[in-house]
Amino acid sequence: LLTIVADNLQITHSVVAKAVQERDPEPIQALVKACEAAGAEAIDINSGPLYRDPEAGMSFLVQSVQTVTDLPLMIDTANPRAMKAGLAACRQPAIINGISLEPAKLEHILPLARAYGTEVIGYLLTAEGHVPPDADQRLAAAVALHAKCKQAGIEETRLIIDPIVAPLSWQDGKRHCRELIDVIRQLPDLLGFPVKTVVGLSNLTTGRGDPEKRLWMQRVYLAMLAASGLSMVLFNVLCPGTVRTVRACRQLLDEKPFSWEMV
Amino acid sequence: LLTIVADNLQITHSVVAKAVQERDPEPIQALVKACEAAGAEAIDINSGPLYRDPEAGMSFLVQSVQTVTDLPLMIDTANPRAMKAGLAACRQPAIINGISLEPAKLEHILPLARAYGTEVIGYLLTAEGHVPPDADQRLAAAVALHAKCKQAGIEETRLIIDPIVAPLSWQDGKRHCRELIDVIRQLPDLLGFPVKTVVGLSNLTTGRGDPEKRLWMQRVYLAMLAASGLSMVLFNVLCPGTVRTVRACRQLLDEKPFSWEMV
Repeated sequence: LLTIVADNLQITHSVVAKAVQERDPEPIQALVKACEAAGAEAIDINSGPLYRDPEAGMSFLVQSVQTVTDLPLMIDTANPRAMKAGLAACRQPAIINGISLEPAKLEHILPLARAYGTEVIGYLLTAEGHVPPDADQRLAAAVALHAKCKQAGIEETRLIIDPIVAPLSWQDGKRHCRELIDVIRQLPDLLGFPVKTVVGLSNLTTGRGDPEKRLWMQRVYLAMLAASGLSMVLFNVLCPGTVRTVRACRQLLDEKPFSWEMV
Repeated sequence: LLTIVADNLQITHSVVAKAVQERDPEPIQALVKACEAAGAEAIDINSGPLYRDPEAGMSFLVQSVQTVTDLPLMIDTANPRAMKAGLAACRQPAIINGISLEPAKLEHILPLARAYGTEVIGYLLTAEGHVPPDADQRLAAAVALHAKCKQAGIEETRLIIDPIVAPLSWQDGKRHCRELIDVIRQLPDLLGFPVKTVVGLSNLTTGRGDPEKRLWMQRVYLAMLAASGLSMVLFNVLCPGTVRTVRACRQLLDEKPFSWEMV
Protein backbone atom coordinates (compact mmCIF):
# COMPACT_ATOMS: atom_id res chain seq x y z
CA LEU A 1 0.00 0.00 0.00
CA LEU A 2 1.39 3.38 -1.09
CA THR A 3 5.06 2.46 -1.52
CA ILE A 4 7.05 5.69 -1.38
CA VAL A 5 9.17 6.18 -4.53
CA ALA A 6 11.60 9.12 -4.57
CA ASP A 7 11.38 11.13 -7.80
CA ASN A 8 14.30 13.29 -6.65
CA LEU A 9 16.95 11.75 -8.89
CA GLN A 10 16.15 13.56 -12.14
CA ILE A 11 18.53 14.63 -14.87
CA THR A 12 16.57 17.90 -15.06
CA HIS A 13 18.05 18.84 -11.66
CA SER A 14 21.31 20.65 -12.32
CA VAL A 15 23.15 18.85 -9.50
CA VAL A 16 22.31 15.49 -11.08
CA ALA A 17 23.04 16.63 -14.64
CA LYS A 18 26.46 17.93 -13.60
CA ALA A 19 27.29 14.77 -11.65
CA VAL A 20 26.42 12.58 -14.64
CA GLN A 21 28.40 14.78 -17.01
CA GLU A 22 31.47 14.68 -14.76
CA ARG A 23 30.95 11.06 -13.71
CA ASP A 24 31.06 12.19 -10.10
CA PRO A 25 29.03 9.75 -7.95
CA GLU A 26 29.16 11.76 -4.72
CA PRO A 27 26.33 14.30 -5.25
CA ILE A 28 24.10 11.46 -6.47
CA GLN A 29 24.92 9.30 -3.49
CA ALA A 30 24.33 12.13 -1.03
CA LEU A 31 20.92 12.71 -2.59
CA VAL A 32 19.99 9.01 -2.48
CA LYS A 33 21.05 8.69 1.16
CA ALA A 34 18.95 11.74 2.04
CA CYS A 35 15.96 10.24 0.21
CA GLU A 36 16.26 6.91 2.01
CA ALA A 37 16.60 8.67 5.36
CA ALA A 38 13.48 10.70 4.54
CA GLY A 39 11.40 7.56 3.97
CA ALA A 40 11.95 6.49 0.34
CA GLU A 41 11.18 2.81 -0.26
CA ALA A 42 12.30 2.83 -3.91
CA ILE A 43 14.32 5.22 -6.07
CA ASP A 44 13.33 6.38 -9.55
CA ILE A 45 16.38 7.04 -11.73
CA ASN A 46 15.20 9.50 -14.34
CA SER A 47 18.13 9.84 -16.69
CA GLY A 48 16.37 11.60 -19.54
CA PRO A 49 17.19 10.44 -23.06
CA LEU A 50 21.02 10.44 -22.55
CA TYR A 51 21.73 11.18 -26.20
CA ARG A 52 25.49 10.87 -25.78
CA ASP A 53 26.65 7.45 -24.67
CA PRO A 54 23.40 6.31 -23.07
CA GLU A 55 24.80 2.97 -21.88
CA ALA A 56 27.66 4.49 -19.95
CA GLY A 57 25.50 7.26 -18.51
CA MET A 58 22.83 4.91 -17.15
CA SER A 59 25.33 2.33 -15.89
CA PHE A 60 27.11 5.10 -14.00
CA LEU A 61 23.82 6.22 -12.44
CA VAL A 62 22.71 2.74 -11.38
CA GLN A 63 26.12 1.84 -9.98
CA SER A 64 26.38 5.12 -8.11
CA VAL A 65 22.98 4.58 -6.52
CA GLN A 66 23.33 0.94 -5.57
CA THR A 67 26.64 1.59 -3.86
CA VAL A 68 24.72 3.41 -1.13
CA THR A 69 21.30 1.72 -1.06
CA ASP A 70 19.60 -1.66 -1.44
CA LEU A 71 16.23 -0.12 -2.29
CA PRO A 72 14.48 -1.25 -5.50
CA LEU A 73 15.27 0.99 -8.47
CA MET A 74 12.97 2.28 -11.19
CA ILE A 75 14.87 2.73 -14.45
CA ASP A 76 13.16 5.73 -15.97
CA THR A 77 14.14 6.47 -19.56
CA ALA A 78 12.58 6.32 -23.01
CA ASN A 79 15.92 5.30 -24.53
CA PRO A 80 15.99 1.50 -25.03
CA ARG A 81 19.80 1.38 -24.99
CA ALA A 82 19.94 3.26 -21.69
CA MET A 83 17.15 1.07 -20.30
CA LYS A 84 18.98 -2.12 -21.21
CA ALA A 85 22.25 -0.90 -19.72
CA GLY A 86 20.47 0.15 -16.53
CA LEU A 87 18.76 -3.21 -16.11
CA ALA A 88 22.03 -5.03 -16.79
CA ALA A 89 23.82 -2.96 -14.15
CA CYS A 90 21.11 -3.38 -11.53
CA ARG A 91 21.79 -5.78 -8.64
CA GLN A 92 18.57 -5.15 -6.73
CA PRO A 93 14.98 -5.63 -8.01
CA ALA A 94 14.45 -3.30 -10.97
CA ILE A 95 11.27 -1.79 -12.36
CA ILE A 96 11.05 -0.56 -15.95
CA ASN A 97 9.53 2.95 -16.07
CA GLY A 98 7.92 2.54 -18.47
CA ILE A 99 6.00 1.44 -21.50
CA SER A 100 2.77 2.46 -23.21
CA LEU A 101 0.83 1.56 -26.35
CA GLU A 102 3.29 3.65 -28.40
CA PRO A 103 4.77 1.19 -30.94
CA ALA A 104 8.39 2.13 -30.16
CA LYS A 105 7.85 1.32 -26.47
CA LEU A 106 6.15 -1.99 -27.20
CA GLU A 107 8.85 -3.02 -29.64
CA HIS A 108 12.02 -1.89 -27.87
CA ILE A 109 11.26 -1.56 -24.14
CA LEU A 110 8.62 -4.18 -23.34
CA PRO A 111 10.82 -7.16 -24.38
CA LEU A 112 13.38 -6.04 -21.78
CA ALA A 113 10.86 -6.77 -19.01
CA ARG A 114 10.84 -10.38 -20.13
CA ALA A 115 14.59 -10.59 -20.73
CA TYR A 116 15.42 -9.18 -17.28
CA GLY A 117 12.42 -10.60 -15.37
CA THR A 118 11.41 -7.19 -14.03
CA GLU A 119 8.19 -5.43 -13.21
CA VAL A 120 7.12 -2.88 -15.80
CA ILE A 121 5.10 0.30 -15.49
CA GLY A 122 2.47 0.76 -18.21
CA TYR A 123 1.27 4.31 -18.84
CA LEU A 124 -2.36 4.73 -19.86
CA LEU A 125 -1.61 6.72 -23.02
CA THR A 126 -2.86 6.35 -26.58
CA ALA A 127 -0.71 4.72 -29.27
CA GLU A 128 0.21 8.30 -30.25
CA GLY A 129 1.46 9.02 -26.72
CA HIS A 130 -1.42 11.28 -25.71
CA VAL A 131 -3.47 11.32 -22.53
CA PRO A 132 -6.79 9.54 -23.33
CA PRO A 133 -9.74 11.96 -23.45
CA ASP A 134 -11.83 10.19 -20.80
CA ALA A 135 -12.04 7.38 -18.25
CA ASP A 136 -13.44 4.83 -20.71
CA GLN A 137 -10.49 5.27 -23.03
CA ARG A 138 -8.09 5.08 -20.10
CA LEU A 139 -9.63 1.76 -19.12
CA ALA A 140 -9.46 0.57 -22.74
CA ALA A 141 -5.74 1.43 -22.78
CA ALA A 142 -5.27 -0.65 -19.61
CA VAL A 143 -6.96 -3.66 -21.20
CA ALA A 144 -4.82 -3.29 -24.33
CA LEU A 145 -1.59 -2.95 -22.31
CA HIS A 146 -2.49 -6.01 -20.27
CA ALA A 147 -2.96 -7.99 -23.50
CA LYS A 148 0.37 -6.74 -24.91
CA CYS A 149 2.19 -7.88 -21.77
CA LYS A 150 0.64 -11.33 -21.99
CA GLN A 151 1.56 -11.58 -25.68
CA ALA A 152 5.13 -10.63 -24.76
CA GLY A 153 5.27 -13.50 -22.27
CA ILE A 154 5.25 -11.31 -19.17
CA GLU A 155 3.22 -12.48 -16.16
CA GLU A 156 0.35 -10.07 -15.57
CA THR A 157 1.37 -9.59 -11.93
CA ARG A 158 4.52 -7.83 -13.15
CA LEU A 159 2.47 -5.05 -14.79
CA ILE A 160 2.08 -1.84 -12.78
CA ILE A 161 -0.37 0.68 -14.24
CA ASP A 162 0.33 4.42 -14.24
CA PRO A 163 -2.96 6.08 -15.24
CA ILE A 164 -1.17 9.44 -15.70
CA VAL A 165 -2.13 12.34 -13.45
CA ALA A 166 -3.20 15.32 -15.55
CA PRO A 167 -2.19 18.84 -14.47
CA LEU A 168 -4.95 20.79 -12.72
CA SER A 169 -3.93 23.72 -14.93
CA TRP A 170 -5.28 21.95 -18.04
CA GLN A 171 -8.62 23.22 -19.18
CA ASP A 172 -10.24 19.89 -18.24
CA GLY A 173 -7.61 18.94 -15.65
CA LYS A 174 -10.08 18.69 -12.77
CA ARG A 175 -12.28 16.28 -14.70
CA HIS A 176 -9.26 14.12 -15.54
CA CYS A 177 -8.21 14.12 -11.88
CA ARG A 178 -11.67 13.15 -10.67
CA GLU A 179 -11.94 10.38 -13.25
CA LEU A 180 -8.56 8.98 -12.21
CA ILE A 181 -9.89 8.33 -8.71
CA ASP A 182 -12.48 5.96 -10.19
CA VAL A 183 -10.12 4.47 -12.79
CA ILE A 184 -7.73 3.36 -10.04
CA ARG A 185 -10.60 1.81 -8.10
CA GLN A 186 -11.94 -0.01 -11.17
CA LEU A 187 -8.70 -1.44 -12.60
CA PRO A 188 -8.45 -4.61 -10.45
CA ASP A 189 -11.99 -5.69 -11.33
CA LEU A 190 -11.54 -4.75 -14.98
CA LEU A 191 -8.31 -6.73 -15.42
CA GLY A 192 -9.40 -9.56 -13.14
CA PHE A 193 -6.44 -9.48 -10.74
CA PRO A 194 -5.16 -7.09 -8.05
CA VAL A 195 -3.11 -5.02 -10.49
CA LYS A 196 -0.71 -2.56 -8.87
CA THR A 197 -1.01 1.14 -9.67
CA VAL A 198 1.40 4.07 -9.46
CA VAL A 199 1.19 7.82 -10.05
CA GLY A 200 3.67 10.67 -10.31
CA LEU A 201 2.17 13.19 -7.90
CA SER A 202 4.02 16.32 -9.03
CA ASN A 203 2.23 16.22 -12.40
CA LEU A 204 -0.90 17.42 -10.61
CA THR A 205 0.55 20.88 -9.99
CA THR A 206 2.73 21.37 -13.06
CA GLY A 207 2.87 25.02 -14.05
CA ARG A 208 2.36 28.06 -11.86
CA GLY A 209 1.05 28.10 -8.30
CA ASP A 210 2.21 28.97 -4.79
CA PRO A 211 4.60 26.20 -3.61
CA GLU A 212 2.77 25.70 -0.32
CA LYS A 213 -0.63 25.43 -2.05
CA ARG A 214 0.79 22.97 -4.57
CA LEU A 215 1.76 20.68 -1.69
CA TRP A 216 -1.73 20.94 -0.15
CA MET A 217 -3.32 19.95 -3.45
CA GLN A 218 -0.90 17.04 -3.87
CA ARG A 219 -1.53 15.71 -0.36
CA VAL A 220 -5.30 15.92 -0.56
CA TYR A 221 -5.26 14.20 -3.96
CA LEU A 222 -2.88 11.54 -2.67
CA ALA A 223 -5.31 10.69 0.15
CA MET A 224 -8.16 10.36 -2.36
CA LEU A 225 -6.12 8.05 -4.62
CA ALA A 226 -4.97 6.06 -1.59
CA ALA A 227 -8.59 5.38 -0.64
CA SER A 228 -9.07 4.03 -4.19
CA GLY A 229 -6.26 1.54 -3.59
CA LEU A 230 -3.18 3.19 -5.13
CA SER A 231 -0.10 0.93 -4.65
CA MET A 232 2.87 3.26 -5.22
CA VAL A 233 3.47 6.99 -5.46
CA LEU A 234 6.39 9.02 -6.86
CA PHE A 235 7.09 12.36 -5.24
CA ASN A 236 9.77 14.61 -3.76
CA VAL A 237 10.44 12.63 -0.56
CA LEU A 238 12.36 15.56 0.91
CA CYS A 239 8.93 17.11 1.69
CA PRO A 240 8.24 15.73 5.20
CA GLY A 241 4.54 16.64 5.08
CA THR A 242 3.93 14.45 2.05
CA VAL A 243 5.73 11.51 3.67
CA ARG A 244 3.56 12.05 6.74
CA THR A 245 0.48 12.08 4.51
CA VAL A 246 1.46 8.65 3.19
CA ARG A 247 1.89 7.39 6.75
CA ALA A 248 -1.48 8.77 7.79
CA CYS A 249 -3.11 7.12 4.76
CA ARG A 250 -1.56 3.77 5.68
CA GLN A 251 -2.75 4.13 9.26
CA LEU A 252 -6.28 4.44 7.94
CA LEU A 253 -6.16 1.88 5.14
CA ASP A 254 -3.79 -0.97 5.94
CA GLU A 255 -4.60 -4.07 7.96
CA LYS A 256 -2.22 -3.43 10.87
CA PRO A 257 -3.36 -2.17 14.27
CA PHE A 258 -3.59 1.62 14.54
CA SER A 259 -0.52 3.29 16.04
CA TRP A 260 0.18 6.97 16.65
CA GLU A 261 3.90 6.18 16.48
CA MET A 262 3.57 5.34 12.78
CA VAL A 263 1.83 8.60 11.78
CA LEU B 1 -19.92 19.78 -1.46
CA LEU B 2 -18.23 19.71 1.94
CA THR B 3 -20.11 22.50 3.69
CA ILE B 4 -17.97 23.66 6.61
CA VAL B 5 -19.85 23.41 9.93
CA ALA B 6 -18.16 24.85 13.03
CA ASP B 7 -18.29 22.46 15.99
CA ASN B 8 -16.68 25.11 18.18
CA LEU B 9 -19.81 26.14 20.07
CA GLN B 10 -19.97 23.30 22.61
CA ILE B 11 -21.23 23.43 26.17
CA THR B 12 -18.25 21.24 27.11
CA HIS B 13 -15.99 24.25 26.47
CA SER B 14 -15.75 26.16 29.73
CA VAL B 15 -16.09 29.56 28.04
CA VAL B 16 -19.41 28.52 26.54
CA ALA B 17 -20.66 26.83 29.71
CA LYS B 18 -19.91 29.93 31.77
CA ALA B 19 -21.56 32.24 29.22
CA VAL B 20 -24.72 30.14 29.23
CA GLN B 21 -24.78 29.97 32.99
CA GLU B 22 -24.38 33.74 33.32
CA ARG B 23 -26.55 34.51 30.28
CA ASP B 24 -23.68 36.56 28.87
CA PRO B 25 -23.90 36.60 25.04
CA GLU B 26 -20.57 38.28 24.40
CA PRO B 27 -18.14 35.33 24.64
CA ILE B 28 -20.50 33.28 22.45
CA GLN B 29 -20.77 36.04 19.89
CA ALA B 30 -17.01 36.57 19.77
CA LEU B 31 -16.56 32.83 19.13
CA VAL B 32 -19.20 32.75 16.39
CA LYS B 33 -17.70 35.78 14.64
CA ALA B 34 -14.27 34.16 14.74
CA CYS B 35 -15.73 30.95 13.28
CA GLU B 36 -17.44 32.77 10.42
CA ALA B 37 -14.27 34.73 9.66
CA ALA B 38 -12.33 31.44 9.62
CA GLY B 39 -14.62 29.95 6.96
CA ALA B 40 -17.61 28.44 8.78
CA GLU B 41 -20.68 28.05 6.54
CA ALA B 42 -22.95 26.78 9.32
CA ILE B 43 -22.77 26.74 13.12
CA ASP B 44 -23.53 23.73 15.30
CA ILE B 45 -24.99 24.77 18.66
CA ASN B 46 -24.20 21.90 21.00
CA SER B 47 -25.96 22.79 24.21
CA GLY B 48 -25.70 19.44 25.93
CA PRO B 49 -28.80 18.21 27.77
CA LEU B 50 -29.46 21.54 29.60
CA TYR B 51 -31.08 19.84 32.59
CA ARG B 52 -32.02 23.13 34.25
CA ASP B 53 -34.41 25.25 32.24
CA PRO B 54 -33.62 23.77 28.81
CA GLU B 55 -35.95 26.12 26.91
CA ALA B 56 -34.41 29.30 28.26
CA GLY B 57 -30.86 27.99 27.83
CA MET B 58 -31.30 27.03 24.17
CA SER B 59 -33.28 30.18 23.32
CA PHE B 60 -30.48 32.25 24.82
CA LEU B 61 -27.89 30.38 22.73
CA VAL B 62 -29.79 30.68 19.44
CA GLN B 63 -30.59 34.35 19.98
CA SER B 64 -27.02 35.14 20.95
CA VAL B 65 -25.70 33.46 17.81
CA GLN B 66 -28.16 34.88 15.30
CA THR B 67 -27.53 38.39 16.51
CA VAL B 68 -24.09 38.19 14.89
CA THR B 69 -24.53 35.78 11.96
CA ASP B 70 -26.99 34.75 9.26
CA LEU B 71 -25.39 31.32 8.80
CA PRO B 72 -27.63 28.23 9.07
CA LEU B 73 -27.69 26.77 12.57
CA MET B 74 -27.60 23.14 13.66
CA ILE B 75 -29.52 22.66 16.89
CA ASP B 76 -27.57 19.93 18.62
CA THR B 77 -29.21 18.47 21.68
CA ALA B 78 -30.85 15.24 22.78
CA ASN B 79 -33.35 17.15 24.92
CA PRO B 80 -36.65 17.53 23.03
CA ARG B 81 -37.68 20.58 25.05
CA ALA B 82 -34.41 22.35 24.29
CA MET B 83 -34.68 21.29 20.63
CA LYS B 84 -38.16 22.71 20.31
CA ALA B 85 -37.18 26.00 21.98
CA GLY B 86 -34.14 26.28 19.71
CA LEU B 87 -36.16 25.73 16.55
CA ALA B 88 -38.80 28.19 17.70
CA ALA B 89 -36.14 30.84 18.34
CA CYS B 90 -34.33 30.29 15.04
CA ARG B 91 -34.82 32.91 12.31
CA GLN B 92 -32.44 31.37 9.76
CA PRO B 93 -32.63 27.85 8.25
CA ALA B 94 -32.27 25.33 11.07
CA ILE B 95 -31.05 21.75 11.01
CA ILE B 96 -32.01 19.27 13.72
CA ASN B 97 -28.92 17.43 15.03
CA GLY B 98 -30.19 14.84 15.29
CA ILE B 99 -32.23 11.69 15.38
CA SER B 100 -31.54 7.96 15.21
CA LEU B 101 -33.51 4.72 15.45
CA GLU B 102 -33.62 5.13 19.25
CA PRO B 103 -37.34 5.20 20.12
CA ALA B 104 -37.08 8.39 22.21
CA LYS B 105 -35.56 10.25 19.27
CA LEU B 106 -38.15 9.00 16.81
CA GLU B 107 -40.99 9.86 19.13
CA HIS B 108 -39.93 13.23 20.51
CA ILE B 109 -37.40 14.78 18.09
CA LEU B 110 -38.38 13.57 14.60
CA PRO B 111 -41.86 15.18 14.68
CA LEU B 112 -40.18 18.57 15.24
CA ALA B 113 -38.59 18.31 11.78
CA ARG B 114 -42.06 18.21 10.30
CA ALA B 115 -43.50 20.85 12.60
CA TYR B 116 -40.68 23.32 11.86
CA GLY B 117 -39.99 22.31 8.24
CA THR B 118 -36.30 21.73 8.91
CA GLU B 119 -33.62 19.38 7.68
CA VAL B 120 -32.77 16.61 10.10
CA ILE B 121 -29.56 14.69 10.67
CA GLY B 122 -30.05 10.94 11.09
CA TYR B 123 -27.29 9.03 12.89
CA LEU B 124 -26.60 5.50 11.72
CA LEU B 125 -26.96 3.91 15.17
CA THR B 126 -28.91 0.90 16.35
CA ALA B 127 -32.24 1.28 18.17
CA GLU B 128 -30.17 0.83 21.36
CA GLY B 129 -27.97 3.80 20.40
CA HIS B 130 -24.88 1.75 19.54
CA VAL B 131 -22.57 2.00 16.54
CA PRO B 132 -23.58 -0.82 14.14
CA PRO B 133 -20.98 -3.61 13.99
CA ASP B 134 -20.38 -3.44 10.22
CA ALA B 135 -21.15 -1.66 6.97
CA ASP B 136 -24.19 -3.81 6.13
CA GLN B 137 -25.86 -2.90 9.40
CA ARG B 138 -24.99 0.77 8.89
CA LEU B 139 -26.71 0.63 5.50
CA ALA B 140 -29.70 -1.17 7.03
CA ALA B 141 -29.98 1.62 9.62
CA ALA B 142 -29.99 4.19 6.79
CA VAL B 143 -32.84 2.40 5.03
CA ALA B 144 -34.82 2.19 8.28
CA LEU B 145 -34.25 5.88 9.08
CA HIS B 146 -35.31 6.86 5.57
CA ALA B 147 -38.55 4.91 6.06
CA LYS B 148 -39.17 6.52 9.46
CA CYS B 149 -38.80 10.00 7.94
CA LYS B 150 -41.27 9.17 5.19
CA GLN B 151 -43.75 7.78 7.73
CA ALA B 152 -43.40 11.00 9.73
CA GLY B 153 -44.32 13.02 6.63
CA ILE B 154 -40.85 14.49 6.08
CA GLU B 155 -39.59 14.83 2.50
CA GLU B 156 -36.65 12.52 1.99
CA THR B 157 -34.49 15.38 0.69
CA ARG B 158 -34.57 16.89 4.19
CA LEU B 159 -32.76 13.86 5.65
CA ILE B 160 -28.99 14.22 6.14
CA ILE B 161 -27.19 11.02 7.12
CA ASP B 162 -24.40 10.99 9.72
CA PRO B 163 -22.82 7.52 9.46
CA ILE B 164 -20.85 8.13 12.72
CA VAL B 165 -17.06 8.23 12.55
CA ALA B 166 -15.58 5.69 14.96
CA PRO B 167 -12.45 6.56 16.95
CA LEU B 168 -9.25 5.08 15.54
CA SER B 169 -8.41 4.13 19.12
CA TRP B 170 -11.20 1.53 19.16
CA GLN B 171 -9.98 -2.01 18.73
CA ASP B 172 -11.68 -2.21 15.31
CA GLY B 173 -11.65 1.54 14.70
CA LYS B 174 -9.64 1.32 11.48
CA ARG B 175 -12.06 -1.16 9.98
CA HIS B 176 -15.01 1.06 10.88
CA CYS B 177 -13.25 4.06 9.32
CA ARG B 178 -12.47 2.18 6.10
CA GLU B 179 -16.03 0.89 5.84
CA LEU B 180 -17.41 4.40 6.28
CA ILE B 181 -15.66 5.51 3.09
CA ASP B 182 -17.71 2.96 1.14
CA VAL B 183 -20.91 3.53 3.10
CA ILE B 184 -20.89 7.22 2.16
CA ARG B 185 -20.32 6.33 -1.49
CA GLN B 186 -23.13 3.75 -1.49
CA LEU B 187 -25.86 5.71 0.31
CA PRO B 188 -27.26 7.68 -2.68
CA ASP B 189 -27.69 4.52 -4.77
CA LEU B 190 -29.09 2.59 -1.82
CA LEU B 191 -31.72 5.20 -0.93
CA GLY B 192 -32.42 6.13 -4.54
CA PHE B 193 -31.79 9.87 -4.27
CA PRO B 194 -28.71 12.10 -3.75
CA VAL B 195 -28.93 11.96 0.04
CA LYS B 196 -26.69 14.42 1.87
CA THR B 197 -24.13 13.12 4.36
CA VAL B 198 -22.30 14.69 7.29
CA VAL B 199 -19.60 13.58 9.72
CA GLY B 200 -18.11 14.94 12.93
CA LEU B 201 -14.41 14.77 12.16
CA SER B 202 -13.01 15.08 15.69
CA ASN B 203 -14.50 11.70 16.63
CA LEU B 204 -11.76 10.08 14.56
CA THR B 205 -9.05 11.03 17.01
CA THR B 206 -10.90 10.88 20.33
CA GLY B 207 -8.58 9.82 23.13
CA ARG B 208 -4.85 10.24 23.33
CA GLY B 209 -2.50 11.28 20.54
CA ASP B 210 -0.16 14.12 19.64
CA PRO B 211 -2.32 17.15 18.63
CA GLU B 212 -0.42 17.72 15.38
CA LYS B 213 -0.74 14.06 14.37
CA ARG B 214 -4.45 14.09 15.20
CA LEU B 215 -4.92 16.92 12.69
CA TRP B 216 -2.98 15.00 9.99
CA MET B 217 -5.18 11.96 10.48
CA GLN B 218 -8.34 14.10 10.37
CA ARG B 219 -7.30 15.88 7.18
CA VAL B 220 -6.28 12.75 5.32
CA TYR B 221 -9.53 11.04 6.32
CA LEU B 222 -11.54 14.11 5.32
CA ALA B 223 -10.03 13.97 1.81
CA MET B 224 -10.97 10.30 1.53
CA LEU B 225 -14.56 10.95 2.62
CA ALA B 226 -14.76 13.96 0.30
CA ALA B 227 -13.85 11.75 -2.66
CA SER B 228 -16.76 9.50 -1.64
CA GLY B 229 -19.14 12.47 -1.91
CA LEU B 230 -19.45 13.76 1.68
CA SER B 231 -21.75 16.82 1.77
CA MET B 232 -20.95 18.48 5.11
CA VAL B 233 -18.30 18.22 7.80
CA LEU B 234 -18.19 19.39 11.43
CA PHE B 235 -14.82 20.38 12.83
CA ASN B 236 -12.90 23.02 14.76
CA VAL B 237 -12.86 25.74 12.10
CA LEU B 238 -10.21 27.66 14.01
CA CYS B 239 -7.67 25.14 12.56
CA PRO B 240 -6.67 26.90 9.31
CA GLY B 241 -5.08 23.75 7.86
CA THR B 242 -8.33 21.83 8.04
CA VAL B 243 -10.23 24.67 6.34
CA ARG B 244 -7.55 24.68 3.64
CA THR B 245 -7.97 20.91 3.27
CA VAL B 246 -11.68 21.46 2.56
CA ARG B 247 -10.81 24.10 -0.03
CA ALA B 248 -8.29 21.81 -1.70
CA CYS B 249 -10.87 19.00 -1.79
CA ARG B 250 -13.41 21.29 -3.44
CA GLN B 251 -10.82 22.41 -5.99
CA LEU B 252 -10.44 18.77 -6.98
CA LEU B 253 -14.04 17.64 -6.78
CA ASP B 254 -16.45 20.43 -7.61
CA GLU B 255 -17.59 21.48 -11.09
CA LYS B 256 -16.07 24.96 -11.09
CA PRO B 257 -12.89 25.86 -12.99
CA PHE B 258 -9.68 25.25 -11.05
CA SER B 259 -8.30 28.30 -9.24
CA TRP B 260 -5.20 28.62 -7.05
CA GLU B 261 -6.86 31.59 -5.33
CA MET B 262 -9.49 29.29 -3.85
CA VAL B 263 -7.03 26.80 -2.31
